[in-house]
Amino acid sequence: MGFSLLPKEYEFFDMFDKLTAYSISASKYLQEIVGRGCVQDDDVIKIKEIEVAADKVTYEIFDKLNKTFITPLDREDIHSLAHELDSVIDMILKLTNLMKIYSINGIDEKFVEVLKLIDNAIFSISKAVKGLRNNKSYQTVKEHYIEVDRLESLGDKLRNEAIAELFSGKYEATYIMKWKDIFQTAEKLLDHCDDVAKVIETIIVKQA
Amino acid sequence: MGFSLLPKEYEFFDMFDKLTAYSISASKYLQEIVGRGCVQDDDVIKIKEIEVAADKVTYEIFDKLNKTFITPLDREDIHSLAHELDSVIDMILKLTNLMKIYSINGIDEKFVEVLKLIDNAIFSISKAVKGLRNNKSYQTVKEHYIEVDRLESLGDKLRNEAIAELFSGKYEATYIMKWKDIFQTAEKLLDHCDDVAKVIETIIVKQA
Amino acid sequence: MGFSLLPKEYEFFDMFDKLTAYSISASKYLQEIVGRGCVQDDDVIKIKEIEVAADKVTYEIFDKLNKTFITPLDREDIHSLAHELDSVIDMILKLTNLMKIYSINGIDEKFVEVLKLIDNAIFSISKAVKGLRNNKSYQTVKEHYIEVDRLESLGDKLRNEAIAELFSGKYEATYIMKWKDIFQTAEKLLDHCDDVAKVIETIIVKQA
Repeated sequence: MGFSLLPKEYEFFDMFDKLTAYSISASKYLQEIVGRGCVQDDDVIKIKEIEVAADKVTYEIFDKLNKTFITPLDREDIHSLAHELDSVIDMILKLTNLMKIYSINGIDEKFVEVLKLIDNAIFSISKAVKGLRNNKSYQTVKEHYIEVDRLESLGDKLRNEAIAELFSGKYEATYIMKWKDIFQTAEKLLDHCDDVAKVIETIIVKQA
Repeated sequence: MGFSLLPKEYEFFDMFDKLTAYSISASKYLQEIVGRGCVQDDDVIKIKEIEVAADKVTYEIFDKLNKTFITPLDREDIHSLAHELDSVIDMILKLTNLMKIYSINGIDEKFVEVLKLIDNAIFSISKAVKGLRNNKSYQTVKEHYIEVDRLESLGDKLRNEAIAELFSGKYEATYIMKWKDIFQTAEKLLDHCDDVAKVIETIIVKQA
Repeated sequence: MGFSLLPKEYEFFDMFDKLTAYSISASKYLQEIVGRGCVQDDDVIKIKEIEVAADKVTYEIFDKLNKTFITPLDREDIHSLAHELDSVIDMILKLTNLMKIYSINGIDEKFVEVLKLIDNAIFSISKAVKGLRNNKSYQTVKEHYIEVDRLESLGDKLRNEAIAELFSGKYEATYIMKWKDIFQTAEKLLDHCDDVAKVIETIIVKQA
């Protein structure tokens, strides 16, 4: 055993990187849809494919966790990190699906802004996750999870402005309903990004 | 002790069967209401009675769990299973209550369909729970929890269609609000059924 | 160590009292806003300040929990109690923010009633939390958490009536949307109060 133990444990980090790579793909794809201003049937299917692939990796992590005696991070942190990363991708699918159900047409500037925040948050998450392998990079990891928290606060502010604007009297009730739901779902997505950041913070604090 | 230990442990299964019997009663009653096309004051009271009875059994399970040294399944699985079964009945009460608050009148074909899915899911859950007593029936248990998952996916699809239809331009804003809420709550009920199925899956996987 | 151990442990109770004091301040402030009938920019900022201060205490509790070997209550109960008390204050901020976003103007009698329930529930929680220090006061603690449960049921009833009234045909769709959201958020706040009560019940039951 001896020497072979460590490399095997490190497979957890490779699997986490796979999950963040899926979240980046899904986010890029969603940005493309929103930039184009309409959702096609194919779009939901493609993001669903990413979500299914991410689900598979998440289960592999849980399975490996059950079979591994010594883990490179606390068991519950590995579990939470996998679970929360998976939730981010689930929410991207949910948001895409909502845009499809509501037949969203046209580009909303504020929504494009929110999606940019989401994409930046997911990028920071991927960097933070990569940094978990090596405690020499913990300072950078910290900067990344603080950045996610900052982006989430910005997202809150944007959502508040967007919803206040929806209720300003200029829009029809059904239009308000659709966009309120979409902005709230986007904000939940950012909340999930922040949940990932919080798990990473917990990991770093423990190791300090 | 010795011989008396085992039969006592098996009381957990009897209590789970009680919970699934309550969920079946509540689901049948809800189907009757929806088939009739209007909710009466009495209806909410009757489903509330079932919910209170189920709550009582759930607490008995938690209490027995605290007092039992050797349990027939992992403690946390017994806890989750009781909790999730109880949540299914809570959601049936919530859905009935919503129909009452919104003074729902008339029969919606898609909603009848969703309730049929819910009733089937609850039936499969009851069969799966019954099968937990004996590892010879695990193959059947597995078929049942897979079926719940299938029904939940169907429910997702139906809800998406129903909400897209609500926003098609044919309906008034307040009508949309009510039915959107009702379809989403029905879908959450199905999600809770799926949560039960997932706990059962966890139990089976561990024993395999 | 010896003698100094116990007093230090009891700092947990002081910190819980701080949290309940913050929840009382926030609730009083919210009542003032609602009584006045409009939210000003300053109001959200002031409640945000209370929320940030409460967050700080919550983290201090978590931190102390990590560093304390012998705790005066079960570790997971201390964690849950801090977390749930913090959630109550978060929800007060959320509710205030919602009133701001929706530019709520004027006084709604039913909403004033719901806020009175919330304020009473928070008062009972503060008394129950104070009573946790001494098992001689457990009977009083019990009376308080039962009272919170009673207030939560009353809140459910009020919300149902308020929402049924909103959908009675007298109101515009956007008005309904805003107030539905506000009454549901207020009810969630009461649910969180009840969650605190349930944690306290768990603690008392264990000690009995």
